[in-house]
Amino acid sequence: MTERVVLAYSGGLDTSVCIGWIAEETGAEVVAVAVDVGQGGEDLEIIRKRALACGAVEAEVADARDEFAQEYCLPALKANALYMDRYPLVSALSRPTIVKHLVAAARKHGASTVAHGCTGKGNDQVRFEAGISSLAPDLKCIAPVRDYAMTRDRAIAFAESKNLPIATTKKSPYSIDQNVFGRAVETGFLEDIWNGPIEDVYSYTQNPAEPREADEVVITFEAGAPVAIDGRPVTVLQAIEELNRRAGAQGVGRIDMVEDRLVGIKSREIYEAPGAIALITAHQELENVTVERELARFKRTVDQRWGELVYDGLWFSPLKRALDGFVDQANQHVSGDVRMTLHGGRAVVTGRRSDQSLYDFNLATYDTGDTFDQSLSKGFIEIFGLSSKIAAGRDLG
Amino acid sequence: MTERVVLAYSGGLDTSVCIGWIAEETGAEVVAVAVDVGQGGEDLEIIRKRALACGAVEAEVADARDEFAQEYCLPALKANALYMDRYPLVSALSRPTIVKHLVAAARKHGASTVAHGCTGKGNDQVRFEAGISSLAPDLKCIAPVRDYAMTRDRAIAFAESKNLPIATTKKSPYSIDQNVFGRAVETGFLEDIWNGPIEDVYSYTQNPAEPREADEVVITFEAGAPVAIDGRPVTVLQAIEELNRRAGAQGVGRIDMVEDRLVGIKSREIYEAPGAIALITAHQELENVTVERELARFKRTVDQRWGELVYDGLWFSPLKRALDGFVDQANQHVSGDVRMTLHGGRAVVTGRRSDQSLYDFNLATYDTGDTFDQSLSKGFIEIFGLSSKIAAGRDLG
Amino acid sequence: MTERVVLAYSGGLDTSVCIGWIAEETGAEVVAVAVDVGQGGEDLEIIRKRALACGAVEAEVADARDEFAQEYCLPALKANALYMDRYPLVSALSRPTIVKHLVAAARKHGASTVAHGCTGKGNDQVRFEAGISSLAPDLKCIAPVRDYAMTRDRAIAFAESKNLPIATTKKSPYSIDQNVFGRAVETGFLEDIWNGPIEDVYSYTQNPAEPREADEVVITFEAGAPVAIDGRPVTVLQAIEELNRRAGAQGVGRIDMVEDRLVGIKSREIYEAPGAIALITAHQELENVTVERELARFKRTVDQRWGELVYDGLWFSPLKRALDGFVDQANQHVSGDVRMTLHGGRAVVTGRRSDQSLYDFNLATYDTGDTFDQSLSKGFIEIFGLSSKIAAGRDLG
Amino acid sequence: MTERVVLAYSGGLDTSVCIGWIAEETGAEVVAVAVDVGQGGEDLEIIRKRALACGAVEAEVADARDEFAQEYCLPALKANALYMDRYPLVSALSRPTIVKHLVAAARKHGASTVAHGCTGKGNDQVRFEAGISSLAPDLKCIAPVRDYAMTRDRAIAFAESKNLPIATTKKSPYSIDQNVFGRAVETGFLEDIWNGPIEDVYSYTQNPAEPREADEVVITFEAGAPVAIDGRPVTVLQAIEELNRRAGAQGVGRIDMVEDRLVGIKSREIYEAPGAIALITAHQELENVTVERELARFKRTVDQRWGELVYDGLWFSPLKRALDGFVDQANQHVSGDVRMTLHGGRAVVTGRRSDQSLYDFNLATYDTGDTFDQSLSKGFIEIFGLSSKIAAGRDLG
Repeated sequence: MTERVVLAYSGGLDTSVCIGWIAEETGAEVVAVAVDVGQGGEDLEIIRKRALACGAVEAEVADARDEFAQEYCLPALKANALYMDRYPLVSALSRPTIVKHLVAAARKHGASTVAHGCTGKGNDQVRFEAGISSLAPDLKCIAPVRDYAMTRDRAIAFAESKNLPIATTKKSPYSIDQNVFGRAVETGFLEDIWNGPIEDVYSYTQNPAEPREADEVVITFEAGAPVAIDGRPVTVLQAIEELNRRAGAQGVGRIDMVEDRLVGIKSREIYEAPGAIALITAHQELENVTVERELARFKRTVDQRWGELVYDGLWFSPLKRALDGFVDQANQHVSGDVRMTLHGGRAVVTGRRSDQSLYDFNLATYDTGDTFDQSLSKGFIEIFGLSSKIAAGRDLG
Repeated sequence: MTERVVLAYSGGLDTSVCIGWIAEETGAEVVAVAVDVGQGGEDLEIIRKRALACGAVEAEVADARDEFAQEYCLPALKANALYMDRYPLVSALSRPTIVKHLVAAARKHGASTVAHGCTGKGNDQVRFEAGISSLAPDLKCIAPVRDYAMTRDRAIAFAESKNLPIATTKKSPYSIDQNVFGRAVETGFLEDIWNGPIEDVYSYTQNPAEPREADEVVITFEAGAPVAIDGRPVTVLQAIEELNRRAGAQGVGRIDMVEDRLVGIKSREIYEAPGAIALITAHQELENVTVERELARFKRTVDQRWGELVYDGLWFSPLKRALDGFVDQANQHVSGDVRMTLHGGRAVVTGRRSDQSLYDFNLATYDTGDTFDQSLSKGFIEIFGLSSKIAAGRDLG
Repeated sequence: MTERVVLAYSGGLDTSVCIGWIAEETGAEVVAVAVDVGQGGEDLEIIRKRALACGAVEAEVADARDEFAQEYCLPALKANALYMDRYPLVSALSRPTIVKHLVAAARKHGASTVAHGCTGKGNDQVRFEAGISSLAPDLKCIAPVRDYAMTRDRAIAFAESKNLPIATTKKSPYSIDQNVFGRAVETGFLEDIWNGPIEDVYSYTQNPAEPREADEVVITFEAGAPVAIDGRPVTVLQAIEELNRRAGAQGVGRIDMVEDRLVGIKSREIYEAPGAIALITAHQELENVTVERELARFKRTVDQRWGELVYDGLWFSPLKRALDGFVDQANQHVSGDVRMTLHGGRAVVTGRRSDQSLYDFNLATYDTGDTFDQSLSKGFIEIFGLSSKIAAGRDLG
Repeated sequence: MTERVVLAYSGGLDTSVCIGWIAEETGAEVVAVAVDVGQGGEDLEIIRKRALACGAVEAEVADARDEFAQEYCLPALKANALYMDRYPLVSALSRPTIVKHLVAAARKHGASTVAHGCTGKGNDQVRFEAGISSLAPDLKCIAPVRDYAMTRDRAIAFAESKNLPIATTKKSPYSIDQNVFGRAVETGFLEDIWNGPIEDVYSYTQNPAEPREADEVVITFEAGAPVAIDGRPVTVLQAIEELNRRAGAQGVGRIDMVEDRLVGIKSREIYEAPGAIALITAHQELENVTVERELARFKRTVDQRWGELVYDGLWFSPLKRALDGFVDQANQHVSGDVRMTLHGGRAVVTGRRSDQSLYDFNLATYDTGDTFDQSLSKGFIEIFGLSSKIAAGRDLG
């Protein structure tokens, strides 16, 4: 029987060419798999037909938007996942979602190999291949751009020579990856890190500097998950989508940073993630209200490791599962309402209320009703600072 | 010889009353010490004279603004210190500065005790007393508000009965602590955490929602310290002051959060720190450019602990010194320029350049000149993911 | 109705006197509760009758040995809990067990207060009171030794004046706390930390220096819990007891250390914990075999925090529950056999086998059958070290 | 001019063959460099001559024993470096020492490449190559065993065909790496991890089970470094050597573990490190006496990362330098005497004394002279446990 290769198919030039290229390089049949994680653009059925027209023996499409939101974006939200304190892991979250579908397709179609369109200097190749090797250690991985030197120019030549039904016009200056949780943009002129981004780079967000009316939103969480917006019940996917629209309209969620890639280099990245940033900001503040101090302090260490691990492509790893055990437990009481003002590029929390709140008005107030026994503090301070005081007695001596 | 008590004196009602109150409670003479950490307000000489008029046997004032900026704010900047990822430690940084002057005055005047005006439910009592016990383990500490039940009403009655030269009009609804690094506000109606702050609360910052022209600034750092703004050399103090003005005019640096106090309760806090937030934002991005990845990752853990420790009042502790050893080493190469746009409440980095940069255009670019050897990646990915793959082989089995 | 106080009762002089002392100080009725956590010594029924004879209105005893082993010692084993890398938390584990019974008794007997016999400078007062306030925030706590200045001499005088049925002979030079997980000894001559312990101090362990035959044991674990010894099924309690006997007979588990107490001082402690040390040693090595590297590395950080938290008396805290979420997940595959030699004070692992093993002979071997593809290493090394190499290019420049 | 390759030369069969093998593969001249890190065995001059006889154009030898002890072993001691809580990094410490000499030789002899004899599945290849790329990013690295498939059999054939002056008898069953800090042994029958090591495996240590007289030693430290043994001043090298002898004679320092290699596999390792284990044990206990609690707690996290980083071959990395900044600061007061009993495979601390001690007899004692104010504890406990208590009030509700 002829070998089969499952290809992560986007419908664009590169992966359309990959279909024939892989076939020529390996002699295998190519099964194209396109996964909808909210990237927008063309209809899935059109993409499916293009894959077949480009030579795929089978083509499958999957609407994974709810799965992506529920099983990948939500854990990230619970971990307040911001790589380098900034980046909400947009692409890093979609890759394991796609991997799961690729592996399922490989099993279904008896494929021995999975292929993807990534280059050899980015993070996504690692996320694809480490993911696949953890879900299906027996499958091989190939990356034609990296392994078979399938450059852009050669891809265009291939497409033209084979009359592939795909536009081979001059490439956009932007290299874009997007899904419902956000959008990543790389482009040549931003490789000079002294250059600022121009408005043309953005698509999910309006210019935050333009005057407009502020938008106020109330997000309701249950155990760390958004469950209602302004009182209307929502799925996680709907919460992200609505906040992408509303926060995006206010210019919230633009990120411009120099980032440490897993492959050891620093790169300049522009992201837009209006919904993600609004949700994480709200979630963090609700944690401030509902999570006990020592748990909150240690959770920052766990959250940081969670973000690094997922950025590094180790979603399907034993450490990830154990960190989730911690994070889920820590989110058990993260329930309540957060009111935010979305305006001028900022998502600002202005109110929070929760029946799981650990904020105790009577302990906190300086007015009538204060129940805090201040006489306890003297003993606390003396003993809290004692080890340091004893050391000082030596060090000053 | 009569015992002497050194009192941290602000010039306000509470500490003015403390002078006589302490004298009555303890029989000691009171030496008043006022320290200028950039809180603004009255002239120091006026404050000095008021202390004497209120009964102090000696009164000293010190301009510690440069010392505060250089020795306390700068280390915080190097550690990107943001307690709970938000609060730049405004009051927590000023307390050790003041403590140092109090202890020096106690030594000079032969005092056995130091007094401060804090209540028994806040963080500052700990910062004062833990600081004093670490610089002078032999000194005693008293806090009349906490230890002698010196309530506001009783203080007013005392001031009036003694004809103290200090206004006893109705208290402002705001409890404020401010210095050059920022401003903290507490007030009754914000003790309901569902209430949003009103414009009246703010003083260091303009309303970010009002339309105005953006301001672009270039901050130059050397080894983590700001040394020039727009090309003009500045001291750390001048950098903070200028950015307070310029970022404050754009509404940058407002913070509204529920915070975990050291004494175990949660409290609602409003802060303004335009200069601090602008500087930390710029410093973080310059670290992204100049600090190697593994150092940057571990530094987040160190920075978090640094912030907690200083928030908790342990500035003069052995752990603080050792963390500084790490942080200083990590900042050695954090030199270069950061260009920021200050506008609409946001301080956004748009450019960075540095002769210490680890960003390598030739490794990062996808255009001509790419020197990254993509063929190395396959081996990297395979071995990087191997331990996870082996575990998967077991766990899926 | 008369107030009731539940007293943690040991049967010894101090807590026997506490019964009457508390009654006199507070006017309350005292309910004595003795909890068997494997401390050995007198029969529980004798203890119960003594409490009544000393004036308790009610006396309860509970055999909590299995509960202690299963719910307190086992989680510690899963976390390899060694405070300061040495101390297996013997007393720190028994306190929450006892607290649970005290609170249950308080509820049953309508008591408003719980009393314990600890001094005011140790860790156990914190463990009792923080535990009680977390299980029953409404209950008050009293500690007669600390709060009512019930010194040893005054206790003896009280016992004699009331003819209490308890020996008031000269106190043993040793202050001992023991349970099935180990034994803690403090004594005056060891307060000079240059003095070495003498043989007389020990009770759970034989002198390791004496010649004897080695003992070989095979411990079987399932998901981190010991389930068989030498093939015979055991409960956790039986595993600890058998290893106390067998490892104790070989002098295993003696610990002599200077320790950081929660109250800020350093103290000299002697412990014996033969079963605990043998089990933790075996468990650690089985983790080496069955836990993936990145999970194992992060688990060390979690384990350390777990140990500190429990040492500090915060067993019933939100952070503890979340850490347990991580630790339980990490122990899921810690199953298999560990063979140890117990001899001369050492518990040495000599073999391990597990169907959950991640040790892969074919990848590890240098002999025939090697399946490791060495050609992958070059790419791995180059990219693994790239960020450091780029930094070197700058730093050496 | 002919290219030159600097080869890390041991004098054994593999690296002797490498000289000619590299020359044939690359056409380059080979410069052999042997570095004495205390591995014992042949005289360096004999090794030097053999290199020349095997075809090296130049041969250099360096006595780096003091440098190794002072600059590599001592930092490890200060960090209590034990990878996976067990392994004192014996080989991981020698590699950067050797790398430094290789790079110096490459500069001196104008070589463009450095070669080593490691296989492609161990840690040492990473330590060599990551080290070289950090000290000399321009140098290339080659590993004939890995890169040119120089198997043992082919090496023997090569040696015989060229009449190299080196024995090609049947290989020892043991693969050994040793230096003054310890000795590592791998061997086929231990690749079955259920097999226990046999006595024949060991060389630095006597059988701990044999009866003998105990040895008592007093080690004096200054700022974390051993400076005297039994009152006689020693260098770090002398301290390690003397304790290798004395602790080795008592069977101290044998380690048998399954270890996580950097290349993703688990391997079985046997180590002997009598001096290292004795010194680390003493150093840890002196830290217990002289390091403040919070510093000690955080230092465990730093020490763990230090050990992982050095194990992983990143000695010459920015993070390593910053961690050293912390570790050196933390060791500033680690001065004093530790008395240990070496016997039966155990190095047991029995006494410690230090004028930098933070152990305060008067605070610790329960006898006359107690200066600890127990009345402070009630306030401490209440506030220390308050955040947990508030959470309990919610969670139990």
